[in-house]
Amino acid sequence: MPSSFAIGVDLGGTNLRIAAVDTDGNLLEKITLGTQVSKGREFVVNEMCEAIQSLTSRYSSKGSLCGVGIGIPGIIDKRTGMLRESPNLPGWHDYPVRDDISNRLGTEVILENDANAAAFGENWLGAGKGYDEMCMITLGTGVGGGLVLRGSIWLGMNGMAGEVGHVTVDPNGHPCGCGNIGCAEQYASATAVMRMAREEIEAGDAPELAKLAAGPNVEFSARAVFNLALQGDKAAQRVYNRVGWALGILIGDLINILNLRMYVIGGGVSNGWQAFAPSMFEELRKRSMVYAATAPADEYIPIGASAKVVSQQPPPYRTIVTIALLGSDAGLYGASRLPMVKNSG
Amino acid sequence: MPSSFAIGVDLGGTNLRIAAVDTDGNLLEKITLGTQVSKGREFVVNEMCEAIQSLTSRYSSKGSLCGVGIGIPGIIDKRTGMLRESPNLPGWHDYPVRDDISNRLGTEVILENDANAAAFGENWLGAGKGYDEMCMITLGTGVGGGLVLRGSIWLGMNGMAGEVGHVTVDPNGHPCGCGNIGCAEQYASATAVMRMAREEIEAGDAPELAKLAAGPNVEFSARAVFNLALQGDKAAQRVYNRVGWALGILIGDLINILNLRMYVIGGGVSNGWQAFAPSMFEELRKRSMVYAATAPADEYIPIGASAKVVSQQPPPYRTIVTIALLGSDAGLYGASRLPMVKNSG
Repeated sequence: MPSSFAIGVDLGGTNLRIAAVDTDGNLLEKITLGTQVSKGREFVVNEMCEAIQSLTSRYSSKGSLCGVGIGIPGIIDKRTGMLRESPNLPGWHDYPVRDDISNRLGTEVILENDANAAAFGENWLGAGKGYDEMCMITLGTGVGGGLVLRGSIWLGMNGMAGEVGHVTVDPNGHPCGCGNIGCAEQYASATAVMRMAREEIEAGDAPELAKLAAGPNVEFSARAVFNLALQGDKAAQRVYNRVGWALGILIGDLINILNLRMYVIGGGVSNGWQAFAPSMFEELRKRSMVYAATAPADEYIPIGASAKVVSQQPPPYRTIVTIALLGSDAGLYGASRLPMVKNSG
Repeated sequence: MPSSFAIGVDLGGTNLRIAAVDTDGNLLEKITLGTQVSKGREFVVNEMCEAIQSLTSRYSSKGSLCGVGIGIPGIIDKRTGMLRESPNLPGWHDYPVRDDISNRLGTEVILENDANAAAFGENWLGAGKGYDEMCMITLGTGVGGGLVLRGSIWLGMNGMAGEVGHVTVDPNGHPCGCGNIGCAEQYASATAVMRMAREEIEAGDAPELAKLAAGPNVEFSARAVFNLALQGDKAAQRVYNRVGWALGILIGDLINILNLRMYVIGGGVSNGWQAFAPSMFEELRKRSMVYAATAPADEYIPIGASAKVVSQQPPPYRTIVTIALLGSDAGLYGASRLPMVKNSG
């Protein structure tokens, strides 16, 4: 094994996951805990530090520790190592996260926004492997994103870059929590899939969706709507066509602005690829002349989870739009990568 | 004077301009010729090379020549130094522009897209001076753009980055020549201002615009519509509000994606700043939470041409949206800068 490893932490609103990963990208061990936010910050930080220390001592005989990378939902001030905003972590605002944890552990700690960490992980070991430039779009409860430019995370002026979920796709569209109307997030997140499914039910031409919604809560999900779409249900297909339409506009904008080689779609809703990809690619060809000029002859449409691997050495001048490969571990791998590279962002 | 200088060329469809610029950014001399495209490529290249040689010999006693930078409208293949596409320069396709000119002159030649060259010029000596990161948006016959990231021009995978004019601002909007509908270019270019003015006339509630349109062709211009808007004409104001609306959506998208410090608006329509800036900033605050979180307390609204200078040392975490300062010389300065810096893109 390589002579050094790092600890990656994915601190979510629900789960707290800590992993030891070596510099070749091998997962040595992963610890998953519930994030007991309600017990307060001190409790969560203690749990995190204990897990980090136990992993560190377990693997220290096999290599040296590069440091600790932590992915956190919210806006991070890289200069001070503090959280500027994090709706999922009340009580963490104005607390010196980085320095406190670094002092407790006696090792270097790097903080990163979780969407950026996921982009960095997919870039290191997932769909973006071998690409110096990529954009990741994560379709979860909301729509997040991260940019990797010239091999490092693009933070922007103050770490707020990559908010691709709030790009306007319809200036007269659905209101968004951010204050805008018609954000991509309002059409391509899991929340949006559910809202659009309810809109179909209200419009009165969606008997299967209505049946689904009348059942137990747990059964009415973005995945269940996708399942119906796969079975040929027209209303469910309209919902996923709308997802593809919004992603086509969003990714078309990104391609026109940045002309990157690689756009990776992750998050739970990305599992519905088969249902949204056709309308996404159709929109993309129409919306972006840059995409039309660089689209691969065989647009890559993965079937379900068995993703066909894109050529490791892609020809130059081809724009690849594809699904993420690392699932929910992308952020964990990305976080552990942070202390391994210098000047990452 | 500094010990070296470069030659910058701005090869437009109408004018061919050649300048000697020293490494401090002083214009030593500028030659303006008509671009006689109809006389063929060979004729234009000969004229250009003669002007370059005459400038070079005139200033060679005062310093060494860094090289020649040429800004060209169209898509450039940086690898081969050929034009991939240039509607304004028929007959230049598949011709080794860079190598031929370099061989004739016996010096290094760097080609760049004209919008990128303009961005680089404004970044060196204009509104973006001192900023490592900026986006320039040029409102001319069309809407072009260029990105400067980490101090160099962002080319993207194959030089097609910065096509901000073709970002979708209204998915159900006006058809664009690029194949998309509702591109920013369809609301913020000089061509769009004229179309929207004609639409106002057709709608029947624009007597002053109708009077203008009935006069000589030369009098019906984007500038004349701006002039009417300044005088309080409601129809002309509606046209420029629409310009501001589209720019607000476009720049809001750019800010959400890239979180840069500086966005510079240039080109002829930018002279109508006073008429479009209020609606642009209103839209921007609504559309981009990243802008809202970083907007300067005193949004900078220049009055006419007497631009108030933005603080040379802007505080961190402020997003500046402002007008270009170098006018039509931006591209010329940017082109001359190209051979002065290494790894520029």
